[in-house]
Amino acid sequence: MALIFKTDIERGGAWRAAFAKQLPDVELRLWPEVGAAEEIEYAVVWQPPAGFLASLPNLKAVFSIGAGIDHLLADPELPRGVPIIRMVEPGLTVGMTQFVVMACLMLHRSMIDYRNQQVAHHWEEISQEPPENRRIGIIGLGHLGGEAAKALRGFGFPVSGWSRSRKQIEGVTSYAGEEELSDFLARTDILVSLLPLTPQTEDMIDAKLLSGLPKGASFVSAGRGRQVVEEDLLAALDSGQLSGAVLDVFREEPLPKDSRFWDHPRVIVLPHVASMTNPATAVGSIVENIRRIQRGEAPLHQVDLEKGY
Amino acid sequence: MALIFKTDIERGGAWRAAFAKQLPDVELRLWPEVGAAEEIEYAVVWQPPAGFLASLPNLKAVFSIGAGIDHLLADPELPRGVPIIRMVEPGLTVGMTQFVVMACLMLHRSMIDYRNQQVAHHWEEISQEPPENRRIGIIGLGHLGGEAAKALRGFGFPVSGWSRSRKQIEGVTSYAGEEELSDFLARTDILVSLLPLTPQTEDMIDAKLLSGLPKGASFVSAGRGRQVVEEDLLAALDSGQLSGAVLDVFREEPLPKDSRFWDHPRVIVLPHVASMTNPATAVGSIVENIRRIQRGEAPLHQVDLEKGY
Repeated sequence: MALIFKTDIERGGAWRAAFAKQLPDVELRLWPEVGAAEEIEYAVVWQPPAGFLASLPNLKAVFSIGAGIDHLLADPELPRGVPIIRMVEPGLTVGMTQFVVMACLMLHRSMIDYRNQQVAHHWEEISQEPPENRRIGIIGLGHLGGEAAKALRGFGFPVSGWSRSRKQIEGVTSYAGEEELSDFLARTDILVSLLPLTPQTEDMIDAKLLSGLPKGASFVSAGRGRQVVEEDLLAALDSGQLSGAVLDVFREEPLPKDSRFWDHPRVIVLPHVASMTNPATAVGSIVENIRRIQRGEAPLHQVDLEKGY
Repeated sequence: MALIFKTDIERGGAWRAAFAKQLPDVELRLWPEVGAAEEIEYAVVWQPPAGFLASLPNLKAVFSIGAGIDHLLADPELPRGVPIIRMVEPGLTVGMTQFVVMACLMLHRSMIDYRNQQVAHHWEEISQEPPENRRIGIIGLGHLGGEAAKALRGFGFPVSGWSRSRKQIEGVTSYAGEEELSDFLARTDILVSLLPLTPQTEDMIDAKLLSGLPKGASFVSAGRGRQVVEEDLLAALDSGQLSGAVLDVFREEPLPKDSRFWDHPRVIVLPHVASMTNPATAVGSIVENIRRIQRGEAPLHQVDLEKGY
């Protein structure tokens, strides 16, 4: 029994150590050293080459290294009968909660204006709103969004979320489905996107959606870049429909040197760092699911390929 | 019975409305329209002129509009027999907790580096530490510091505090007195100052104190500017002893146009906005104390003039 591991990042050592400690009975193979394909039962991967997973005849599960699984769906030969597992692990959740709280506090506390004032050597107090006057809306109220929503509630912000299906989170208003999207947007002063990338969410954040927010709202983009129509976002920032944006994801990454976002006075650009999977805690989630599969139980966090997340 | 009110900020309207609603039986007078001095029993003030409070013969209490009372102690004729009350009110506490959490998350998540990368159109991921590896230390563990410490604990940071007397806050290690200061500094990766300004704390944050932090630590300055020896702080930032600083208070405010802090690549400059007293909630705290005094009870949050806070 073997597990194939493929990542594009330079943290193979931490992963190897965690697997050796927590999964000693499974042979770890590092891509591209695949060895005998029929011995591989589990794949833990990021951006596998098209057709690679289909070449493993005895695969029992595919684990995504990140929260999104769009990098797997990009493979037209993705084996349809094998469970695909999203990454849900404490390190990733903690990092995203930190990021969303930080970004919302920065927008709430006028940190883009203060950045610009610092550049101009200008000293001026900007008036403060109490948190109960700043309504935060999380579009994509899944596992990560729910945890971020709870943390934001702790600061006294009114928090709601929008998702395909209705959610039950104490103190958080849940809006669901197309028909409730406009009501959700109309009550949202800071919009936080944590949407998964699916055919339905691609290009979803466009001029029409942004115009449904109150004038002067702000935006935190932490889902996927292809959900955002970037020209529409720039137009909303230029017109004042949006007063500011914290952007962590872009249609093209790295963001091209000549993108208008870099120098935009109402934008904070980040290099896709909102949250990273932590090998030390992620391997625990993977091992738990392998044990469930070995016992014949259904794995946790399995992707519904119909929904795409 | 009258109350004299003096502020230097443009929010007199909100204060007047709150007093009229919550304290209808007391006549509100707005400085400099003092009227008959002997009728004034309460003073709610920011930076009163020297000798003004001593000119009120029947004063029963002096309320500071801000958390600090150094602006009152600056008056050499401050009447010694009249209780001085610090501002402790929910709006101020909520604002400071927001600010400290935001500043610590920004330093934890490398937001100064990312600001500089944005200016350079440079896309590069900086490796992340889990929160349990980032030790936060609050110097000045009073009411505001204690609330900020609890909020930071909720994010998984190890949090300690230093103060003159030992404090009991669940999950927060309390260091007390001169003899424990070096141990406190040696375990602190992000130092947050919320110290009151007293003769003991003036110039306290100097080269010696900063050299007691681990190399590469960072600093949030939200107490008073005169606690910081600014040349020493700049030297620590230039040498790499400190990797970054979020500075909200300065020796001279507004910060002079030619201060080196404005353009320093490791500094975020803010115009003394960490937290503001909220009239709507502050008047409630003042009224509660007036009622206590009227019933012959001791007021809450009375300043100990020996300690200076």
